[in-house]
Amino acid sequence: MATTIAFLGIGLMGEPMSANLVKAGFPVTVWNRSAAKADPVVKLGAKRAATPEAATSGANIIITMLENGPIVRDVLFEQGAAKGIRAGALVIDMSSIPPDYAREHAKRLKAERKADYLDAPVSGGTVGAAEASLAIMAGGESAVFERARSILEKMGRPTLVGPTGTGQLAKLCNQAIVGINIIAVAEALLLAAAGGADPAAVRKAITGGFADSKILQVHGQRMIERKFLPGGRSQVHLKDLNSVIDAANETKLDLPLSKATREIFKYLVDIGGGRYDQSAALLAIEHMNKPARVGAAPDILPKD
Amino acid sequence: MATTIAFLGIGLMGEPMSANLVKAGFPVTVWNRSAAKADPVVKLGAKRAATPEAATSGANIIITMLENGPIVRDVLFEQGAAKGIRAGALVIDMSSIPPDYAREHAKRLKAERKADYLDAPVSGGTVGAAEASLAIMAGGESAVFERARSILEKMGRPTLVGPTGTGQLAKLCNQAIVGINIIAVAEALLLAAAGGADPAAVRKAITGGFADSKILQVHGQRMIERKFLPGGRSQVHLKDLNSVIDAANETKLDLPLSKATREIFKYLVDIGGGRYDQSAALLAIEHMNKPARVGAAPDILPKD
Repeated sequence: MATTIAFLGIGLMGEPMSANLVKAGFPVTVWNRSAAKADPVVKLGAKRAATPEAATSGANIIITMLENGPIVRDVLFEQGAAKGIRAGALVIDMSSIPPDYAREHAKRLKAERKADYLDAPVSGGTVGAAEASLAIMAGGESAVFERARSILEKMGRPTLVGPTGTGQLAKLCNQAIVGINIIAVAEALLLAAAGGADPAAVRKAITGGFADSKILQVHGQRMIERKFLPGGRSQVHLKDLNSVIDAANETKLDLPLSKATREIFKYLVDIGGGRYDQSAALLAIEHMNKPARVGAAPDILPKD
Repeated sequence: MATTIAFLGIGLMGEPMSANLVKAGFPVTVWNRSAAKADPVVKLGAKRAATPEAATSGANIIITMLENGPIVRDVLFEQGAAKGIRAGALVIDMSSIPPDYAREHAKRLKAERKADYLDAPVSGGTVGAAEASLAIMAGGESAVFERARSILEKMGRPTLVGPTGTGQLAKLCNQAIVGINIIAVAEALLLAAAGGADPAAVRKAITGGFADSKILQVHGQRMIERKFLPGGRSQVHLKDLNSVIDAANETKLDLPLSKATREIFKYLVDIGGGRYDQSAALLAIEHMNKPARVGAAPDILPKD
């Protein structure tokens, strides 16, 4: 049977991801809550469905790329997407949602629709989505992953990390490292500035050594320029860090830096930085240490 | 006047660094406490001095690469190195020592010997030293830095970050980021394992995304293999993290992750891991969370 894909959720990420599937030659039917966002991918050749059920009923592969766990659950089981899913179809949820949501969705789709399930959240942002270079962390059965592989490879680099839910867990591991490393860079640049060094020169000097990272390169530069336009919003990162701590609690782990980092992002949101880029964690560390500051330039903040 | 170099401290780092200066054609006189360690660089063409004073008295550039602040102070001012230093000579201290030590050495060398001073600690390890790709963080006057530049460039990539002492401060910033990021990777891999994912697959899946770093690549792999042979010893990293907190206290900064990371490295040293590689910070996080563990393989530990 030829592959036919339903893609639910055509936002900042879903649009370039679904576009890459269309360009690869797959027949793709898209659905989005605000239909207009799907215009570019429809122009590329995707079909538009008026409802989630209309999208899924013609497909044997269903991809969801939605905002959070409750929304995925709502679209699947309240707005009718599940009703259209045939026995033997494969649901690939590429949204970032808590692992226990993923496990429950897998169970219900198997019980109610006899469908397979793979959790496959991504890292790499809109640039990675456009370039089809996303890191894709997949959880599920090996045979199910193999069935999905050629599709996922059109959007990035998929890796099977374990059973259902562990793709989401790997995404949480990713977000923990990202959040902690952002605070590490913020603390180091503030220490450099307070001690009389030029933070921009320090960042440049240590790039390439053992302190080097994507975060030092990208978010470190944003901190130097005090340019806190997202990128990734801090309130979304706080949501992910809350899920990290929930997952740690479920497995009875005490993870001191993950916990402290969650508190710092909560502090940032509390002082009004929820809409700012994650690199604005620097503002939280500075706020705790007034009047210490990295550079004299004014903050560049989002307008809405 | 032609450049003549004295190089004091021919250890794991000093040997390849001084060798690169010899290969670049500079006349280099070396001194080391245990003379035999200088044999390879003497074979390459360096002269051997019997005492620190004998080394420095023939040189207009004096490079020190010693273990810590007290040892640098002892070699300079107690063992006679300073006595040999001429007016107008330049002392480049590439050791990693506290910023306040560096500032005092600069002051004394200027007052007692009319000599210039640059602090220029490095990051990149023995591989970076051998490949002349060290990140070199320099503190001092701009003209002094320019005088040193062509020599430093034979050992790596020098960047002037500010006045005297700020090279050492930049090194501390580097060590703070490295230490925090090691704990970040340890926490993430333990969370992955405890939640039923394959930690090796998770590490592979997130490499290349925003969580990527030198630490994830190098120390993350050591954690997966449970291979804790140094590399960099944890007790040395604890010493650096103590200096980070001292520098933060001097500038009245509260840096929560740096502080927590110092406590975790102290915990590791307390449970006997001081001689282990920094990646053994995983053992501290596991020890706090018994019986959670990353993988079933036995630990590979140093013998002495």
